[in-house]
Amino acid sequence: MKIPVLGIACTKFGELWHQSLSDLLAQAEYEALADAHLVPQDIEMIVTANMGASVWSGQGHLGAVSSDILGIDVPAVRIEAACGSGGAALAAGVMAIMSGAARTVMICGVEKMTDVDPAQITAGLMNACLRDGDAFSGASFVSLFALVSQQYFLQYGIGREQLAKVSVKNHTHALNNPLAHLHKKITIEDVLRSPMIADPLSLLDCSPISDGAACIILGAPGSAAQGVNLIASAQATDTMSLAARPTLTSFAATRKAAKLAYAQAGITPENINVAEVHDAFTMAELIALEDLGFCAPGTAGYTNLTIPVNLSGGLKAKGHPIGATGVAQAVEMVKYLRASSVNCVGLTHNMGGIGTTVAVHIFEKRSLGV
Amino acid sequence: MKIPVLGIACTKFGELWHQSLSDLLAQAEYEALADAHLVPQDIEMIVTANMGASVWSGQGHLGAVSSDILGIDVPAVRIEAACGSGGAALAAGVMAIMSGAARTVMICGVEKMTDVDPAQITAGLMNACLRDGDAFSGASFVSLFALVSQQYFLQYGIGREQLAKVSVKNHTHALNNPLAHLHKKITIEDVLRSPMIADPLSLLDCSPISDGAACIILGAPGSAAQGVNLIASAQATDTMSLAARPTLTSFAATRKAAKLAYAQAGITPENINVAEVHDAFTMAELIALEDLGFCAPGTAGYTNLTIPVNLSGGLKAKGHPIGATGVAQAVEMVKYLRASSVNCVGLTHNMGGIGTTVAVHIFEKRSLGV
Repeated sequence: MKIPVLGIACTKFGELWHQSLSDLLAQAEYEALADAHLVPQDIEMIVTANMGASVWSGQGHLGAVSSDILGIDVPAVRIEAACGSGGAALAAGVMAIMSGAARTVMICGVEKMTDVDPAQITAGLMNACLRDGDAFSGASFVSLFALVSQQYFLQYGIGREQLAKVSVKNHTHALNNPLAHLHKKITIEDVLRSPMIADPLSLLDCSPISDGAACIILGAPGSAAQGVNLIASAQATDTMSLAARPTLTSFAATRKAAKLAYAQAGITPENINVAEVHDAFTMAELIALEDLGFCAPGTAGYTNLTIPVNLSGGLKAKGHPIGATGVAQAVEMVKYLRASSVNCVGLTHNMGGIGTTVAVHIFEKRSLGV
Repeated sequence: MKIPVLGIACTKFGELWHQSLSDLLAQAEYEALADAHLVPQDIEMIVTANMGASVWSGQGHLGAVSSDILGIDVPAVRIEAACGSGGAALAAGVMAIMSGAARTVMICGVEKMTDVDPAQITAGLMNACLRDGDAFSGASFVSLFALVSQQYFLQYGIGREQLAKVSVKNHTHALNNPLAHLHKKITIEDVLRSPMIADPLSLLDCSPISDGAACIILGAPGSAAQGVNLIASAQATDTMSLAARPTLTSFAATRKAAKLAYAQAGITPENINVAEVHDAFTMAELIALEDLGFCAPGTAGYTNLTIPVNLSGGLKAKGHPIGATGVAQAVEMVKYLRASSVNCVGLTHNMGGIGTTVAVHIFEKRSLGV
């Protein structure tokens, strides 16, 4: 496939108490239209990613909210796949294009979290896990990822320092992203000394709770594009419960979605020049790098990758307004590729639950005359 | 389009306190597989419709829950479009098929409502409306539909008796549907004497709060089918707020989706032999019949339609477990068409919000040798 990216936009991520859920969505939608030089009436379908607004903002029906903002009457739905909602919405947009149902599709993502009681955020996040299973045990999301981290430490002999490096790197990258939630240069010592949340994950191993929205507009194959095409879109699903998995230190859904995406694009991991991966926790970035084939299992904490990862700051420092995250990864990737003066291939990896839902997308920039 | 329906299933609708959300979903999924003579590994994608489980059951991520139940690792997402979630999920399944992304797609719908505090149900239903708009005014869903009904009464001079006839008809139909929530023969007098909820809508003008799940499996064009094909799938969207509409007595999204669906199928309303329409309130059925082109505006309360409508009992008497409703309409339609001994064309009409999101699907049965 070769689907042109017509427009992109992302709001500032952060504590945006002066903007409502609808305000954020409207900003992202209209900025993406402006970027694409389109008007609302050009959009033939809308897919909006959101996880928790029904619980946290008293607002469902977000597909229709998105079309209402533009004043148009086209098909509009909400996709939810926990923290992987954005990637799943992007994949739904691709299917709408490839089916011929729509020639120009807007994919939005939004979440409003910082004005909600944090206990409701923690409880609401567990909607991503099986209520009759892992959630019933009283686990929180970070405690489940702590289990994964402990197992990884045992299996591969790394320690908190290797995780801390991920956080330091992504915080450094965020300094260059004006839209990032956190603009704070940190050291490994800062991470190690930050309050322990769920051993071995400390505060600075965890992505923040953020507000934000993002939007991307896809066109039909062959329509005008600003040089960047989406060339692969793949999803896979693993068990809801960690207890049902043969291993905790690698996520089968990432491996499967990556394999499908590489096959669609006709490339291998070695052809990827840049990546945005789902670092909701530092541990998640290391596992993603291995599952995506960028380095061997157990080595991500020590390997010096030759490609940049999470230049946006990642979920860790750019922020993680859940529904927006997967769409924002694509937006950041397109920004990077547009700015590249050479041929360039970038991958985005978005995850819902503890490795349960994964979407992998690959974007390509071909320079003129090449 | 001509997409074969491979399998269908619907659980009993009602107060199913002995079955959890997952139990209901599992029953519908496995019964649909059995009906299709398929095994879980034949399914290449899952789309699950649900409106309120994040709020009412502490369970999101329902695409992955559905794939987890089958033990498969294929793409799986949840679609939400308020009470129109099921129809929107069916349309998403059609796009997955038409895009070539999957050859066999399972569409599920589920809701669990009867074990929830009714105040939470009423509040959660308002997530379908704009939180900054109609919901902010303190309106409930039934009160908004009462406004529509009052306006219709004023404009067309009908009274509560014409609404009551719809309820009596659908309750009568439900007596023949063993899966229906309400098996109670009622009279026009019963409706008129039932407690007033929001004038002019009384208790027996309103669909009940129900638990239930439904499932339909679509195949790629050309694959084996039990004689019923999906021949049109269309969606449209109207404003979130009633205050933004030029009229309250007709829903533009129904008119647009119907027009698109008829065009796709190459037919007119006169070619439809049977319909399941979204009668969340009795008033909604009359408006739907007019907007779908079965009778002229303002006449549905008096017209003697020549086609049967809501033979299943409709939302009014079959029940309205929200996420399941749109899928169940399709299931009931396929059941009816399968049983038909002659060529037959059926339409399903599913609505989210007060006419905000509408999906119209058309199914066709061609008898052997015709």
